[in-house]
Parts: sequence; C-alpha cells; structure tokens
Amino acid sequence: MSIQCYAAFEAKAELRPHTYEPGPLGPYEVELAITHCGICHSDIHLVDNDWGISTYPLVPGHEIVGTVRQCGEQVRHLSLGQRVGVGWQSGSCLQCEWCVRGDETCCAQKEATCVGRAGGFASAVHVDSRFAHPIPDGLASEHAAPLLCAGITVYTPLKAGVQPMSRVGVIGVGGLGHLAIRFAAAFGCEVTAFSTTADKQEEAHRLGARHFVASRDARPPEKLAGSLDFLLSTVTVPLDWAAWLNVLRPRGTLWFVGASPGKIDIPPMALIVGNKSVRGSGIGPRATMQEMLEFAARHNIAAQGEVLPLAEVNAAIRKVRENRARYRIVLAT
Amino acid sequence: MSIQCYAAFEAKAELRPHTYEPGPLGPYEVELAITHCGICHSDIHLVDNDWGISTYPLVPGHEIVGTVRQCGEQVRHLSLGQRVGVGWQSGSCLQCEWCVRGDETCCAQKEATCVGRAGGFASAVHVDSRFAHPIPDGLASEHAAPLLCAGITVYTPLKAGVQPMSRVGVIGVGGLGHLAIRFAAAFGCEVTAFSTTADKQEEAHRLGARHFVASRDARPPEKLAGSLDFLLSTVTVPLDWAAWLNVLRPRGTLWFVGASPGKIDIPPMALIVGNKSVRGSGIGPRATMQEMLEFAARHNIAAQGEVLPLAEVNAAIRKVRENRARYRIVLAT
Repeated sequence: MSIQCYAAFEAKAELRPHTYEPGPLGPYEVELAITHCGICHSDIHLVDNDWGISTYPLVPGHEIVGTVRQCGEQVRHLSLGQRVGVGWQSGSCLQCEWCVRGDETCCAQKEATCVGRAGGFASAVHVDSRFAHPIPDGLASEHAAPLLCAGITVYTPLKAGVQPMSRVGVIGVGGLGHLAIRFAAAFGCEVTAFSTTADKQEEAHRLGARHFVASRDARPPEKLAGSLDFLLSTVTVPLDWAAWLNVLRPRGTLWFVGASPGKIDIPPMALIVGNKSVRGSGIGPRATMQEMLEFAARHNIAAQGEVLPLAEVNAAIRKVRENRARYRIVLAT
Repeated sequence: MSIQCYAAFEAKAELRPHTYEPGPLGPYEVELAITHCGICHSDIHLVDNDWGISTYPLVPGHEIVGTVRQCGEQVRHLSLGQRVGVGWQSGSCLQCEWCVRGDETCCAQKEATCVGRAGGFASAVHVDSRFAHPIPDGLASEHAAPLLCAGITVYTPLKAGVQPMSRVGVIGVGGLGHLAIRFAAAFGCEVTAFSTTADKQEEAHRLGARHFVASRDARPPEKLAGSLDFLLSTVTVPLDWAAWLNVLRPRGTLWFVGASPGKIDIPPMALIVGNKSVRGSGIGPRATMQEMLEFAARHNIAAQGEVLPLAEVNAAIRKVRENRARYRIVLAT
C-alpha cells in the first residue's frame, strides 16, 4: 500500500505532497500508522542539506508516534494496534561490542530514521521493530512524540551527569531546554534556566526552574562563578565557553547536546584547576529511551507545544525556522 | 632548630644555600627530617614565577620523603621515626563539603607545600601531619618521592577513567608519562606511548607500553583514528587536540594533566558524535594518595631516574630545564 507523505525535492525547498511504495515488510519490521510526528531542528538541517548527507526526495520526521498496523514474521514483542514511538535512530547491527552492551548509539552501522529512508511526515512508515518503543499509557501521543528525540537527548546526559542534590544550569529554553528543565527538576535538582528571551521567565519557573537568567551576552553573569555542578548546553550559537566553565563548581561538567558552531575555546588549565569536564552526546540507547518514557509518564512530563495538521507542515516548519515554536510543534495526521 | 635549605632569591635565579627558623611546631604538625625530594617541573615554574604566585626567598620541593622527628601535641597517627611522604598539597580546611567527602583537592582553602611556605629542598620541614602519607615498606625512598606528585597526578585519572580492558594512550614519556605507562600497564590496559623522542622506544616497552609512536607532529598518525579509549596528555606543548580526539573510540576521554598552552580547539560536534569527554585534573585526594602508594608497592612501580645530592640542586634543575632528566631527578640530603 502506498504511503502518503510530505517531501523536500531539493535543498531548502518547501515540502510537497508525495507518495512512495515502501516495499515488502522485512521480517523484523513493523508498519506503523502514524498519528503524530514532532518537528525537530534536525529535520530542517536535513531539508536544507546542512550536513551534506541529504538525498531527495527527502521525507523528514523522526519523532514518530503511531500504532502497529502490520508485523514482520519475526516480530514477537509488538502486537497489532500497539502504540509505539520511533526517534532519530532506527537501526544498528545489534551484534557489535556497543550493541551487545546496550549502547547502540555508538554502533558503526547505526541508521537514522529519516536519512536515506523516508521519515515520519507521512501517513505510515516501515521501521525496525527493535527500534519501535512502546509508549506508556500515561503519555498522550502529542506529548510523547518530542520525547523521542528532544526528550532522550536531554535525559541521557542528566541521567549520566547529575545527582538529586546537583545545581543544574540549562542553557537555552527551547525544544530541548524546556524538557531538560522538567527532567532535572523531577530528578530533584535545583535548576537555573538561561535564555535570551526575558519573557520566558514565568514559563521557565512553571517548568520547574528555580532561577532564571535572561541575557543576550555570550558570557554568563560574573556573580554566578562557581555556583553550578552541571551545565547542559542546548543552544546552537557560539558562546564564551571558558566563561561558562567558570560558572561550574569543582568537579563540574559542561555538557553539549547543541552543536554550537566554533570551537570550545578553553585552555587545558581551566579543566585541571577544579577537575572539570566537557562532554557531549546525542540521543541515547534503547534502554535509556524506555526508561525515559516511563519516567516521563511517572512525572507527567509532557513536551509542550502545539499540534498542527500534517497538511500545514510548511507553515509549521516556518514557525520553527523563525524560532516562534513554544516549544515544539507536533504534526498530526 | 634552624632548617638548612636551598632557596631562590628572585625569579629565574639559581638557588643558594639558606637557613630559616621554622617556628614552633603546630599541634597537628610534624617535623620531618628530609631524606629525599624529587624535582618537578612545577618547582621550576615556581622558581621562575611563571604563575605569578611566588614569593622570595622561595624554597622549592614538594615530592618529599623523610622521617618524623617531632610530633605536635595533637598528632596521634604518626610516630617518631616513621617514614612519610608529602606531595604538592599540604593542607586544607578538613571541614568543607569537599574535605568531608574526601576530596581535599577541591577545598577552597587548600594549601601547597612550597607556595607561601618553605618546601623540601631542605634538611627538614614542618608540615600538617594530616598531609604526611606513610610510605609502604616495599618502596625505596628515592623511588617513592616522585610518586607523591607525578605519581598521584597520573594515577588519579587512570583510576577514574580506565578499566582493565581499556586501550590507553599516554602522550609524553617523561616524569609523569613514564609512571602513567607503568600504572596503566599494571591496571591491565593496553598502552600506547607517544613521544617526540624516538630513542625512548625500548624504555617505553620495558615500562609496559605495547605500542610506541614517535612523532614531532602536532597530530597523531591518521591510522590510529578510533583506536583508543583513553588519552592522557602529560605534555605542556600545544597539540592539535581535535585530531587527538579523533584517535578516541566512542565514549573515549581525553584527559589533561599537563597544562598545555593554547586552547582546546574542538568543536562541540566532535564531542557529541561518539559521546566523547575532555577532562582535566591535578594531583589527587589523600585517600587516593594512600591507595596509589600501596598499589605502587604491590606492583613494584618505582619512579625511574637518578639521585643527586641536594648540594647539586642547580645542576639538577638545569638538567630538568633542558629535558635531559630520564625521567625524574631526586635530591638526597
């Protein structure tokens, strides 16, 4: 059965309605009837071919929620009608040292949901069932969709790098940052939100931030020196990272999930004094994804935003491009 | 009783014989009769006032081994005649959050053995007994002295960052690097030693390195891309750190103990892809010091070098300045 979707036919183009034949379902694949798909900045980078890896027609979408409509013959753990989600990663070899230790994000053969294959701005999709994650009942589909990429991307470093007593700074209150505030607050942390937009203050507090700092400076305020244990940068602008490192207390970590341009301009001595770390990560492995979804359900952590019909995808993308999404747009089929 | 020592009377000067009165012994202090003291590059930075913290006359020396000659009235855990060592750190508040969790290197009131007080190029020294570390019987004093700074500096990151199966690269085969090779090999790791000096190869293998790479390039050989789990940089020259990061496998760590000039010129994306970390540390806390000394005794890990009489301190310093020490010079009183 043909799949209806929206595709870019060249770099930076608007998306147009498109139809493709998904081919026969592989033995471990499931066909999902898509109900929701979030819009991530990565989708726009792919449309624009910013990373030089795009092929056209390109069907974006990697924050997919849908129900299982058909199962490949080897699929045992999912059933027809079950609600599942698919994030950025949709495949790996499942046999290398990284896969067998549950760290599929490091697999050299990892595959992405909408790179070289059609993504979730569509009526349906064929995906590897091993990367289709059951969605806990407590989560509404439109709230769950952005958790599958934005959510796992911020949950993973918080899980690895903070403790309940930690003082956590979140740089950027957007699609990723607003979820980071919620997760860190639910972990028990004292959260400071940093934003260039002063009128996000009330919302940041509502999300769980104890402190809010509005600034367009590349440097944080001097008075914050030595005050935080962990800084999560979700932004994609270059900042004065040496000054941000100085906000950290001893043994503090500056963790990048946002691919800021430029270099990390920190002298080694700034790490040596205070035993500091600079780290980075993208998304997270399958076990963490399942844990994150369950944690989100437990604490009612819902991605915040608006739902637009898939047919309005171009208006929705425009809104994301212009930084007008607050904080995530989810397309509903 | 006066203490005989060697002191610099101005920046970059040769050391001259000097005498000072140590004053009364504090209740928690011990007086040590010094038998050995290693020469660390930091001593030379202090003599030269490279860090702008030196006061003169300056008595260097912070890899001290000696015997307890006198105990302050509150000292209970050391006894007269006992052999102990003192490293870079000789004091902390012992009461702040860092001290009470056994992490004295992060104490805001930490004190250094030869900054603002007289160090170990001397016949004796008064030090806080809580920072005088018993030396296990199996270690000769001239072998133990460099462990107290060089040893703890490389042991701490290896303890924190490697596992027995790790593939570890040590950048620089000098005072720190030669001990890093020995510790990493004793941990069970596969060690690759990087040196600018080709004729250190045989020695590197003897120290426990499986592989040896001689190069004066700022970049490691291309063929090593993705081959190591952990890189310990002991050098103080600027290298192409982005290229070194590329030597790491997924989840790898580049750890600085050498204060290279310049910046860590790595784009955040290079950390995000592969989940990599860049860290730094100096020395280590008291518990790790004691553990390191016992581990060194267990595995007969001796700092390698030559012993010169304290009276030849200026010739010894010249040898260190000219990078002719192989690998550590220890002064004997």
